[in-house]
Amino acid sequence: MFDFEILNTDGKARHALMTVNNKQVKTPLFMPVATKGTVKTLISEDLEELGVQALISNMYHLLLKPGIEKIEDAGGLHQFMNWDGLIFTDSGGFQMIRSDFDNEVTSKGVTFNSDQDGKTYEITPEKCIQLQKRIGSDIAMCLDYCPPYPADKGELEKSVMRTKEWAKRCKKQGDNIFGISQGGTIPELREKSCKDIVDLDFEGNAIGGLSIGEPTELMYENTKISTSVFPKRKPRYFMGLGSPIDILECVKMGVDIFDSAYPTRNARHRTIFTKNGNIRIDKRKFGEQHIPLDPNCDCPTCRNYTRAYIHHLCKADELSWMRLASLHNVKFMMDLMEDCRKAISENRYDSFKEDFIDSYTVC
Amino acid sequence: MFDFEILNTDGKARHALMTVNNKQVKTPLFMPVATKGTVKTLISEDLEELGVQALISNMYHLLLKPGIEKIEDAGGLHQFMNWDGLIFTDSGGFQMIRSDFDNEVTSKGVTFNSDQDGKTYEITPEKCIQLQKRIGSDIAMCLDYCPPYPADKGELEKSVMRTKEWAKRCKKQGDNIFGISQGGTIPELREKSCKDIVDLDFEGNAIGGLSIGEPTELMYENTKISTSVFPKRKPRYFMGLGSPIDILECVKMGVDIFDSAYPTRNARHRTIFTKNGNIRIDKRKFGEQHIPLDPNCDCPTCRNYTRAYIHHLCKADELSWMRLASLHNVKFMMDLMEDCRKAISENRYDSFKEDFIDSYTVC
Repeated sequence: MFDFEILNTDGKARHALMTVNNKQVKTPLFMPVATKGTVKTLISEDLEELGVQALISNMYHLLLKPGIEKIEDAGGLHQFMNWDGLIFTDSGGFQMIRSDFDNEVTSKGVTFNSDQDGKTYEITPEKCIQLQKRIGSDIAMCLDYCPPYPADKGELEKSVMRTKEWAKRCKKQGDNIFGISQGGTIPELREKSCKDIVDLDFEGNAIGGLSIGEPTELMYENTKISTSVFPKRKPRYFMGLGSPIDILECVKMGVDIFDSAYPTRNARHRTIFTKNGNIRIDKRKFGEQHIPLDPNCDCPTCRNYTRAYIHHLCKADELSWMRLASLHNVKFMMDLMEDCRKAISENRYDSFKEDFIDSYTVC
Repeated sequence: MFDFEILNTDGKARHALMTVNNKQVKTPLFMPVATKGTVKTLISEDLEELGVQALISNMYHLLLKPGIEKIEDAGGLHQFMNWDGLIFTDSGGFQMIRSDFDNEVTSKGVTFNSDQDGKTYEITPEKCIQLQKRIGSDIAMCLDYCPPYPADKGELEKSVMRTKEWAKRCKKQGDNIFGISQGGTIPELREKSCKDIVDLDFEGNAIGGLSIGEPTELMYENTKISTSVFPKRKPRYFMGLGSPIDILECVKMGVDIFDSAYPTRNARHRTIFTKNGNIRIDKRKFGEQHIPLDPNCDCPTCRNYTRAYIHHLCKADELSWMRLASLHNVKFMMDLMEDCRKAISENRYDSFKEDFIDSYTVC
């Protein structure tokens, strides 16, 4: 079952409840990525403690390792990774069609050779959804065709057409599937692709092929086009967007759902989010600061450890700093989304957004 | 303050309560090593959950990074690493006098150049204890002189003499200091060194310079000599011993305290302890076993994750498997020591030990 109930709107920003398979999540929603069945350096109990509502995993990665059968044998991905929350799965289309990959893409689907097990895989749109469902995904994403940025108009036209054809075939595989629009940064193609997807009446509509290297203004422009085409009564999902400011701007345009490796990847690259801007924990001065990463944060890391200690662990090559930093950055995103929802509920989203950005961009 | 109260003996094995600075721990006791101020891949809350009573850190490593002043500024090591339990500190003598090190050892102490900060450090026995106390150590270990194995008799005689002279000077630095015996595997030297240390009347007596590569029988022989010289009313500590069977044998000889990186290092090398023997989690067959690492274990890992999942994380190079494996192996050691204490209390230590070894050495 699937339900999307909008509780409040503030301008185009919306606060809603989305219910899938009896699991209810609040939007705007940010999902950490669990590409290979785990959020890097964290375990499922950590995510629960941080208030994470949903994750996105990746069918392509799980297909290669450990294999779909293994996850079925475990009773599905929820049971395999001991996670009760919502699980989105990405089709892995983005990975499979990269040009540095030994693959062939036809209207039929994607065929690729895995360097991991030497096998040849044929992933049709139908099979792509079936495999996601076998994993036990709550929301499956369509197989789409996403060219790299920049791509010429011809390539983008082809991607819009192929994405539409594949989406039609995905749709026939059942419920709880989100469509994905393409079209790069060419407004008329983006608009066309969004309309194609909307016509197929998926449970939700996603923005694909953005946040892959294009200038921010073009990303915003094409997001605006997408949210104006996507119907209000259905969730809108911007795939792969993770920076706090970009998320806030896109919520303002009416996007509901986001996912990204941004908080965990930044953590592992020593960048810590704080409301007063990001800090690089390996800088010498932090070795002398006996205060939490963010004094206003109540994440498990900030409740128990100091900048000086985490700086020390980092300098001493002790792995646990990565987990401590990841716990913090993910909690930062959870708090940010909670603040968004509250601001929308109280019809003060614009001022909340401006205040956040003012403070966040100080350093 | 320091107190050591023997609650029960079974043969030479003892179950006691040791109280240091108002912190009470039960012996036989195993301490995970927190060399650089953290138990590798774990955080202090993990240790608390696992029932860890005490840790041993290393003055030498903390001196170089982050520096003693930094830890003092943090309010001491307990506060720095957010750990309320007991902290032993090793002098770091073992590290400082290694021959591959740019150092000079005289009767005065050890002088070495650090390749980390380019500075020259002069560590006298007096300074070694003072630095440990400045860190906030509950039990400081004497600076000892431990030659590598094998060493010739002349070298071992010198080490016994120097260790005694240094121990005298350490003793003058206050309370809550344990002496360390040397003597290699030459019975008369081992006995002499133990007597030297006992004469100085430290709060506890430690076995140093064993478990560094010598044959097991020689290790046992010299441990037996040590525990026969060390007085019954004081704790006996075998430094650096970590394998379950060796620990059980040494508890039988009257040793009370152990420390080692063995459980965490094994975890990071994919070796998982179970009561039916160790397993290598990266072996293919474990990828298909949807049962806990050890079905009889109630550690956080075994409560929540399967062999198949941890095998997958390991094969997918996801760091969290190291933490999950370390949680389990440390809990295994905690359970083992709890079982030892119970068996001694119930005067059935020998049969407990034999049963454990029978089961543990099956595979």
